[in-house]
Amino acid sequence: MHTLRPDRRPLSIQAYDQLMALLREGRWKPGDRIPPEPQLAAQLGISRATLREALRLLEEEGRILRRQGAGTFIAPERRLESGLERLESVLSLAARLGMEAIPQDLVVEVVEANRSLAERLQVEQGTPLTSVSRTILVNGRPVAYLEDYVPTRWLSPDDLKARFAGSVLDLLRQHPSLRVQEARAEIGAVRASRALARRLQVRPGDALLLLEETLFDVASTPLNFSYNYFVPDRFRFYVVRK
Amino acid sequence: MHTLRPDRRPLSIQAYDQLMALLREGRWKPGDRIPPEPQLAAQLGISRATLREALRLLEEEGRILRRQGAGTFIAPERRLESGLERLESVLSLAARLGMEAIPQDLVVEVVEANRSLAERLQVEQGTPLTSVSRTILVNGRPVAYLEDYVPTRWLSPDDLKARFAGSVLDLLRQHPSLRVQEARAEIGAVRASRALARRLQVRPGDALLLLEETLFDVASTPLNFSYNYFVPDRFRFYVVRK
Repeated sequence: MHTLRPDRRPLSIQAYDQLMALLREGRWKPGDRIPPEPQLAAQLGISRATLREALRLLEEEGRILRRQGAGTFIAPERRLESGLERLESVLSLAARLGMEAIPQDLVVEVVEANRSLAERLQVEQGTPLTSVSRTILVNGRPVAYLEDYVPTRWLSPDDLKARFAGSVLDLLRQHPSLRVQEARAEIGAVRASRALARRLQVRPGDALLLLEETLFDVASTPLNFSYNYFVPDRFRFYVVRK
Repeated sequence: MHTLRPDRRPLSIQAYDQLMALLREGRWKPGDRIPPEPQLAAQLGISRATLREALRLLEEEGRILRRQGAGTFIAPERRLESGLERLESVLSLAARLGMEAIPQDLVVEVVEANRSLAERLQVEQGTPLTSVSRTILVNGRPVAYLEDYVPTRWLSPDDLKARFAGSVLDLLRQHPSLRVQEARAEIGAVRASRALARRLQVRPGDALLLLEETLFDVASTPLNFSYNYFVPDRFRFYVVRK
């Protein structure tokens, strides 16, 4: 068992980190009961008060569960994991999993469709598009960087000012005159540029999952095109193939 | 229009490269008719014989089509593209698209299940598994490196010797006593190791798409687990999200 080396952070945070390290090592698995407090405090070389504070942090994050009279258990894993065939925003997904997702560094502007965007959105080159970029934090950590391009006729920067919570998909779904049908996501992998690495707190050159997604209405008109960069370790998509 | 600078390769290859560059730039699109040979040869600053040789190479690769009396046209794009929700081997997919897929550097051996494979296949650690690795070439270019792990009770190396055409999925589907139901593919992105880079003819560190796929039978018993590395530029998966 590790013991704590003195550093300048509060002891409870050090204890928290050490418990997290044990969790990551797989020392305990979901559903396991962790040792009683006196034993665990002795193993870690910390006071029971410090341990209790660290456990409180883990409980707040949903990583452990205390059951009255039965003990403290490792919570089931709640990785951000999504069936890709389901059309759902990162924000809705996080909410459904009981996690807090926060859009950060939001930039909204009007740009002219370049050749590539014009093709994907089936509009003329130069058509004004509302561009929306932001990094999505889940539990304080960046999991995705998203860039959406919507023709301004469907969504203007002003529309966003009034009602944007982080998801362009959710906004378009609520739009009174649009009828969202489905999206087609092309799945790729790219290396993080320096700018992306900074936003996503990864190293430049790290592999990112890229979904290039076009959203269509019921008449197969493209409504939105988006580049969605995900940190593979922090967000896992799966698909059931039949 | 570019003109050829002298280099040491045959003129026809230089002309081929230049025509490919024009194709990549989007100068011509699928279905477009390219200029008549005398005009194109003049534009490129090469002889008609050289141009004809370059066009022959492009025709062999299916990139252009000659129609008697009508001219030479850019062929429809035949990228290896697959709807991910469809359970299909790379080899079946290529065959369906009229492309030739060839497994290369095939290695078949028996290994003991490590912890990770044991968990994914729901077997005891140490269980003997038939491991099958190979690189898939399409039109002579590596598009994927595949590593399959099947408990030997379902597939032995000898079974492969007799009937293997490149796809473990296709073999398991033909197996008289197994009933393949579906697969669950987790979608990730990784950087190419030196070994992978060599196999896939990419640079070490390049981003690869990784599908970690578990194949289940009708009783939800795992039959096979595979790591499937794809070169994103050469193989495009998409998913329709609803």
